[in-house]
Amino acid sequence: MHFFLDKNERSYYFISMTKGKDTKLSILEAGLDMASQLGLESVTIGALAKATNMSKSGLFAHFQSKENLQVEILNYAAQLFSEGVIIPALIAEAGIPRIKALVDNWINWTAELKGGCIFVSASTDFSDRPGKVKKVLLQQQNEWIDSLRRIAQSAVRTGDFREDIDYDQFAFDLYSLLLGFHLYYTMLDDTQTRKHQETALDRLLDNYK
Amino acid sequence: MHFFLDKNERSYYFISMTKGKDTKLSILEAGLDMASQLGLESVTIGALAKATNMSKSGLFAHFQSKENLQVEILNYAAQLFSEGVIIPALIAEAGIPRIKALVDNWINWTAELKGGCIFVSASTDFSDRPGKVKKVLLQQQNEWIDSLRRIAQSAVRTGDFREDIDYDQFAFDLYSLLLGFHLYYTMLDDTQTRKHQETALDRLLDNYK
Repeated sequence: MHFFLDKNERSYYFISMTKGKDTKLSILEAGLDMASQLGLESVTIGALAKATNMSKSGLFAHFQSKENLQVEILNYAAQLFSEGVIIPALIAEAGIPRIKALVDNWINWTAELKGGCIFVSASTDFSDRPGKVKKVLLQQQNEWIDSLRRIAQSAVRTGDFREDIDYDQFAFDLYSLLLGFHLYYTMLDDTQTRKHQETALDRLLDNYK
Repeated sequence: MHFFLDKNERSYYFISMTKGKDTKLSILEAGLDMASQLGLESVTIGALAKATNMSKSGLFAHFQSKENLQVEILNYAAQLFSEGVIIPALIAEAGIPRIKALVDNWINWTAELKGGCIFVSASTDFSDRPGKVKKVLLQQQNEWIDSLRRIAQSAVRTGDFREDIDYDQFAFDLYSLLLGFHLYYTMLDDTQTRKHQETALDRLLDNYK
């Protein structure tokens, strides 16, 4: 998986890590790749051992259970998401420019991962499977929705949005738009998808000005 | 799976079927249940045989392969979708009332299936798995989007929408809204979801008036 940082940069970033941690990072990279393509529920210790040519007992020593492995893959993905989607948007100018940066970053994230956004696919798969993995996913989704709310607050502060807007509604509207893009982009062979997404975003922003 | 028709009504509907076909229908019902909860890719001949207490060879005689089984489950779901979502909307008054009926029917459909809409979850899972199942799914998604386009055309004919609207954009906008509802409803424990969806729909319709 090459996402935002290439392998060298990422090695540099984690240069102070121990050998054990470095191995673990490689496993998580391979696990995220597998989860993006086949779905998180398909990533078991056995399947990932096969894909990485490692022993099952070696992987078991790192993760102890399938659920822990899946949770660590989600946490690893969340770290990349934060570095590639959230933080660069926070660096952009507050208000509408920041919202547009966030949308662009999210779209790049979805395009980079082979099977689309892991949080979208895992939420679809785990919505009906109570347990540790769903709990982490739910927390991540709530944090994401909270980021959308906060980005709307920043647009109110700059005066780009009017003061009486409903932040929860904004989060619902923007996330819906991204989910529409996600299905059209990953599933349908529709060359107009990006244009539809841009038109929808302009209209959405107009509703809050 | 009890959806729109209860078991008796459905039996009545299929009263002229042979015994073999009736068995097949029961298997497809169980298969759709399993697909809604665990994901379509988890429905194999072996897993479904276990869930229905049937022999693998018996199921194999009906479906010949996992792919055929998955395709037949999708076709069965499409028949229920047509009966429960599309046709009742076509009976509603043309224009905005028909669009609102379609949205309500779609929401009921998603609420009735335990893990949410099978077409949404299967599209997430199969977007990166080329083959027979993806081909059928893609065709079903295109038919659905075409229904959304046609329903917008009916609203232009009644004068509810203005004449210069972009039907593809309308389909993208409305499907995005439903996908947003789907994620919030199946994944998040958010009591405001239905209110957000209704507000978003009113704004969406206003854009096309």
